[in-house]
Amino acid sequence: MLKYDDILNSLEKKNFSQMYQNDFLHTWMKSNDEINSLFDVADALRMLRENNKSPRIFDSGLGISIFRDNSTRTRFSYASACNLLGLQMQDFDEGKSQIAHGETVRETANMISFMADVIGIRDDMYIGKGHTYMKSVAEYVEEGFNQGILPTRPTLVNLQCDIDHPTQSLADFMHLIHHFGGVENLRGKKIAMTWAYSPSYGKPLSVPQGVIGLMSRFGMDVTLAHPKGYEVMPEVESIAKKNSEFSGGKFTKTNSMQEAFDNADIVYPKSWASYSAMETRTNLYGNNDMDGIKALEKKLLEENAIHKDWECTEEMMKRTKNSNALYMHCLPADISGLSCKEGEVSASVFERYKKPLYLEAGYKPYVIAAMIFLAKVKNPVSVLRDLDRAPNKRYL
Amino acid sequence: MLKYDDILNSLEKKNFSQMYQNDFLHTWMKSNDEINSLFDVADALRMLRENNKSPRIFDSGLGISIFRDNSTRTRFSYASACNLLGLQMQDFDEGKSQIAHGETVRETANMISFMADVIGIRDDMYIGKGHTYMKSVAEYVEEGFNQGILPTRPTLVNLQCDIDHPTQSLADFMHLIHHFGGVENLRGKKIAMTWAYSPSYGKPLSVPQGVIGLMSRFGMDVTLAHPKGYEVMPEVESIAKKNSEFSGGKFTKTNSMQEAFDNADIVYPKSWASYSAMETRTNLYGNNDMDGIKALEKKLLEENAIHKDWECTEEMMKRTKNSNALYMHCLPADISGLSCKEGEVSASVFERYKKPLYLEAGYKPYVIAAMIFLAKVKNPVSVLRDLDRAPNKRYL
Amino acid sequence: MLKYDDILNSLEKKNFSQMYQNDFLHTWMKSNDEINSLFDVADALRMLRENNKSPRIFDSGLGISIFRDNSTRTRFSYASACNLLGLQMQDFDEGKSQIAHGETVRETANMISFMADVIGIRDDMYIGKGHTYMKSVAEYVEEGFNQGILPTRPTLVNLQCDIDHPTQSLADFMHLIHHFGGVENLRGKKIAMTWAYSPSYGKPLSVPQGVIGLMSRFGMDVTLAHPKGYEVMPEVESIAKKNSEFSGGKFTKTNSMQEAFDNADIVYPKSWASYSAMETRTNLYGNNDMDGIKALEKKLLEENAIHKDWECTEEMMKRTKNSNALYMHCLPADISGLSCKEGEVSASVFERYKKPLYLEAGYKPYVIAAMIFLAKVKNPVSVLRDLDRAPNKRYL
Repeated sequence: MLKYDDILNSLEKKNFSQMYQNDFLHTWMKSNDEINSLFDVADALRMLRENNKSPRIFDSGLGISIFRDNSTRTRFSYASACNLLGLQMQDFDEGKSQIAHGETVRETANMISFMADVIGIRDDMYIGKGHTYMKSVAEYVEEGFNQGILPTRPTLVNLQCDIDHPTQSLADFMHLIHHFGGVENLRGKKIAMTWAYSPSYGKPLSVPQGVIGLMSRFGMDVTLAHPKGYEVMPEVESIAKKNSEFSGGKFTKTNSMQEAFDNADIVYPKSWASYSAMETRTNLYGNNDMDGIKALEKKLLEENAIHKDWECTEEMMKRTKNSNALYMHCLPADISGLSCKEGEVSASVFERYKKPLYLEAGYKPYVIAAMIFLAKVKNPVSVLRDLDRAPNKRYL
Repeated sequence: MLKYDDILNSLEKKNFSQMYQNDFLHTWMKSNDEINSLFDVADALRMLRENNKSPRIFDSGLGISIFRDNSTRTRFSYASACNLLGLQMQDFDEGKSQIAHGETVRETANMISFMADVIGIRDDMYIGKGHTYMKSVAEYVEEGFNQGILPTRPTLVNLQCDIDHPTQSLADFMHLIHHFGGVENLRGKKIAMTWAYSPSYGKPLSVPQGVIGLMSRFGMDVTLAHPKGYEVMPEVESIAKKNSEFSGGKFTKTNSMQEAFDNADIVYPKSWASYSAMETRTNLYGNNDMDGIKALEKKLLEENAIHKDWECTEEMMKRTKNSNALYMHCLPADISGLSCKEGEVSASVFERYKKPLYLEAGYKPYVIAAMIFLAKVKNPVSVLRDLDRAPNKRYL
Repeated sequence: MLKYDDILNSLEKKNFSQMYQNDFLHTWMKSNDEINSLFDVADALRMLRENNKSPRIFDSGLGISIFRDNSTRTRFSYASACNLLGLQMQDFDEGKSQIAHGETVRETANMISFMADVIGIRDDMYIGKGHTYMKSVAEYVEEGFNQGILPTRPTLVNLQCDIDHPTQSLADFMHLIHHFGGVENLRGKKIAMTWAYSPSYGKPLSVPQGVIGLMSRFGMDVTLAHPKGYEVMPEVESIAKKNSEFSGGKFTKTNSMQEAFDNADIVYPKSWASYSAMETRTNLYGNNDMDGIKALEKKLLEENAIHKDWECTEEMMKRTKNSNALYMHCLPADISGLSCKEGEVSASVFERYKKPLYLEAGYKPYVIAAMIFLAKVKNPVSVLRDLDRAPNKRYL
């Protein structure tokens, strides 16, 4: 069993000084040491909380949230992380703001940040938009801080953009570490990140991209599978390729779900739209071409329907290592016969993996808390030591 | 005047150990000792706060709220109770979630609960739905806790379901205890829980049901009055009947408002829909039969209109004990000539009782805080003693 | 540079005892000493926070917010101020309440206040409504407190009404104090509060009224400029006139933007609707006359369009003192060629003044915090001293 002191000793040896006062946008912008430090801190924070010790480091302060899309898991994970550390989540609801009244992104970014320590943003709908928006916000609060407008530089946390979904992929990976008993045990393991059929369309690419961009760093055998036409961003594929070369793993692409599942240790079947379809959609929205959108939606749904056989069935699961691969999903899944007629996964497979799926989701609040902690605490090791030794209880 | 130490001494003698780590769904699922303990704790918490001592028992943690219907009093009471104890209220807004995107109740219940200590739910619109939903949520978080998915088992607090409205009836009863100078003074007192006319229809049954289900436990003379056709759930009537037999009180039914008011010490005139009408409505909604709903609404409003004489007028009040019964209402009331043309109560009666009505409502935050306190604190007596002796001030 | 002890010494000499347990509705309801105390406290709180000392004075408690209009700056400023002092902002969203269900203002005011320490209200849309509403709420919670319904008397903070916008004008003025190096340096300075063209109509009068009502108190040369027909409330003009006489300043009116800008040290060009137009609009809304509203809107926009030359251009700025007046705005501004085709200010002027504009906005959270602090703390000087000496850190 993991011991608190072992975590701190492990953390102490890593170089994560660049995370202090820094944003978290894409996992591939962070070094291996930084990623591993984040897992250490997340584990430490969880251990503190589960032992009724409060990891609170703020007496006051706001954690701003900007959700440009619906969210359950990520919203509650962010709220939980902020609360655990002592920050008040304050939602910036564009509908209740004066955005329509001439505010620019620069202005809004500064106006909401006078007492903000963190800004968490979810903006995943339009290719080429979400990440760009986050970078702008980060630049504007940096400028505001440098000009003496903001007393502190709020840290930006990417709660899902058009390119990466780091809080998801890192929670997914923590789940793998704990499930397989250590990051060293993941070397050589085969993970199949595969497309799956869904009766909806236009699901973000950030999950598969986040997964191949991260999991390729640890010597795993990463296989990306999708029907022709469902390509992800080539830039992220390149990153996955380089990562796997560097880490001594493999990155393989295939258009066969079967091939991906064959002998896999882990499967992650999940629907997404293709990069080019998302680009087209973004342009249509940009031109306010609603007829074009409708036509595109119809076309994409028809294309999806050709691939209904891309479903994670019991039959498919039998192809995996010992017929027993770990099934993963970011949730909510399209479950055949349950949440839809035909979907990403059969009800019996999903039901069997309910417990690990929920465990997987449970890492997200701690991943986000660790992102904030490492960005805000200058000496994480000594502060974590103090929090453990002279504990404030989380509850009486 | 009530003394803090007396409250603790009284509490110490009661058996409330089953409330620890338990939900609060219906008052009749709790023993008399448990109900009385709750009153003690609510009084103690209020005394602490009013003496500028902070009853905060959490350093962090979330109190989730799920409001499936509009709410002012209950929402603010829940927010106040959470805040007083150190929890952050976090609203689960189904519209901003991914419910439509295939989430099941089991999944959502777990996903929002990783750092939740309490879940408060209001779901009072459809007969056969609200309580069932709450029980499901409770079962799923119990399962999640047992499987190691959730680090703590969040306590479920019923903020109003289709059957009971415990935070209301308990606040109502605390008001009676304080108004009449002690629970022992309520023995033999006549309370008239009567239907009253309202120009709206479909008001929940949980208030009258909660009132007769609770007040029948203390030796009171409980009279339930309504026009024929406005019956409440037979199961709850049975509970009231058994309660009154057991407590040495009376439970009487009548179809005459006059009879109910005659010599009453307390009157609680309030509109509700009939059980059978609510059942029909639930089925129509279930079948998405909007024409049926409109026809039902028209019919129910016409039926209501036959009983406009069921109004709490000055004339009616003269029938009560010394013409001076205590008038109660859960608010907001339909006040004739003020909030509607003809309603539940005449403006002059309502105006005279404004102060006690507001006092009545003021107990709700403490009732909710006591529910949470007893579910979360293992040794309530000693913790309450500590909070009093070595106080943190609520404000400087 | 400002020193903390100097601020406390300055504060100690002022008479602000009447602010304790009192509301903040209009700046002109406060004495000069009270206004200046507020600036001292705001500066002290900012200094504490910027030195990582927590000015938290509440362990729990709610800061209710009622926003009857969209808001970014004020909403986040209020949330920040509450959080800094230890209060939880709790939004009263009328849409989620039972307002439509017969609640009166008296009832709601009490129902949301059982654990409220502050109530912040924004209600600026209808002439004759906002201030009246706030006064009602204040009276009702006063009554509730006196009757023992509310354990404390929540303080009312005006977050913008139809008459004044004190949190804005006080933040504006703090900006001037800091920009010009002290309130004594403002004596004799010319400030031009002028109307400017906007393609929208019906902007509140509370900003210009708040500015002339406050800035006239410090010996400044206040010039109010607008086209004929855009008069502000005569009552507020009278106040400005009396203030300027009393303080040894000047209050001048003109219908020429040029005249106002000539040799001005500070310019505040901003659109507003006329008092009489707002009165008409209020009446039309009162009669639910939507055709009338549309006709009025058309007429007002046409009238506005006659005055497109009322724009703060580089040309206009050259008229000011050394071509270098300080440009002010409450934000968001209508920026020509940026947020609209033709607006209040040219893009180049706005861009040049971005930094001071953002600094100006940054005072608002501290102004609100100071309002709350002075209303809630009996001995502000000694509490501020304690907070500095035995500090709780804001963050570890």
